[in-house]
Amino acid sequence: MAITRNTMVHEGPGGLFESVVVTDDGAASVPGILLFPNVLGTKEADFTMAEKVAALGYAVLVADVYGQGRRTTRADPDMARYMKELNDDRALMKARLLRSLEVLKGISAVDAARTAAIGYCFGGKCVLDLARAGADIRGGVSFHGVYDAPPFANAAITAKLLICHGWDDPIAPPDAMVGLGRELTEAGCDWQIHAYGQTGHAFTDRDANMPERGLAYQPDADRRSFKAMTDFLAEVLA
Amino acid sequence: MAITRNTMVHEGPGGLFESVVVTDDGAASVPGILLFPNVLGTKEADFTMAEKVAALGYAVLVADVYGQGRRTTRADPDMARYMKELNDDRALMKARLLRSLEVLKGISAVDAARTAAIGYCFGGKCVLDLARAGADIRGGVSFHGVYDAPPFANAAITAKLLICHGWDDPIAPPDAMVGLGRELTEAGCDWQIHAYGQTGHAFTDRDANMPERGLAYQPDADRRSFKAMTDFLAEVLA
Repeated sequence: MAITRNTMVHEGPGGLFESVVVTDDGAASVPGILLFPNVLGTKEADFTMAEKVAALGYAVLVADVYGQGRRTTRADPDMARYMKELNDDRALMKARLLRSLEVLKGISAVDAARTAAIGYCFGGKCVLDLARAGADIRGGVSFHGVYDAPPFANAAITAKLLICHGWDDPIAPPDAMVGLGRELTEAGCDWQIHAYGQTGHAFTDRDANMPERGLAYQPDADRRSFKAMTDFLAEVLA
Repeated sequence: MAITRNTMVHEGPGGLFESVVVTDDGAASVPGILLFPNVLGTKEADFTMAEKVAALGYAVLVADVYGQGRRTTRADPDMARYMKELNDDRALMKARLLRSLEVLKGISAVDAARTAAIGYCFGGKCVLDLARAGADIRGGVSFHGVYDAPPFANAAITAKLLICHGWDDPIAPPDAMVGLGRELTEAGCDWQIHAYGQTGHAFTDRDANMPERGLAYQPDADRRSFKAMTDFLAEVLA
């Protein structure tokens, strides 16, 4: 077994996108997982995480939703600029998310009937928006995601959802979490929120170290949420 | 391996109590688990659950906190009368909880340094109050518990806590859940709340069938919360 990364340039709404496929060399007809990155776009930390997820027996597509060459770093004074474009145009965002799923389902190793999505921070919002679009995925996992719904009506949510939430997240305070619970309850879907105490935003991100802004790696929440995701994916992709 | 039940009559604050020890015959120096029953007091459903927990490698004490002979059933017109006595006297309740832990630690098969508590409905409140008393347990798991804090100051909470919560529970609506999150955050302890959507009160209770009052068995939440408990106990009792 050798897990490899392969860059995949594909068309999508608005241009070309550079995603990365992470799979075991011998994988055939395995479930496929979309991995949506945080605000910065695809990067090494996502490819590393994708390898951990691929090792569970899945083929992973680290999905580019910004467009080829459009990435930022924490040092960038305007690091949120590509995210902002999509936050300002949730219909375009939805179209790109659905295209990412189409690309995942087209990967030869993937069993297109068994797919799920996971995502971090803005990527958690991508997971939720993909589910809100009524996409044909079995499950979605949001890690320290962002919960505001798009300004248009959603389709029926068929995906099961697991939301892993830092209680002290300044981007998603308890009111926002309760609002999401209310939205998903009204949507009638199968959902769970795992709220972790003494935990802020970006708790899975080893590079996050801005406690004064409520962003910090939290090893307990990181470990527990990874385990919760593992169990959840096993449940929905069985 | 044969899991057996042994009735244990013991003294406690206010009289005699009839608890039940559920262990594997061959158990020696295993972690001990307190199991606090729901409003009705100890009953067959608790002993059955205790057997499931004992099968994980633990010695379980199904703790009587009402007193010998003091039990009710769902058919009882005043089924909550023993619970009410303790809700009205949280200091007495605390004394009985601490005594239950003492009894657990005295069981010969139990490694007194490795204990935890689990509980259902009113028993979930018992778990929280035991933790609030600063009891020396490594962890506590509340299933569809009740969250109001006692009317006196708490000790420092050293136990790790997992709260398994039905989002639609009329006894613990979102506001009460958020209030508990706030309390535990201020207490500075290690806590998690797993909130299950489309799930009301009593979701682990196969005998609960009053959907018009928000009480019903929910197989997904039952299975997921049992798994979460299993992982949590393994983590804290390692």
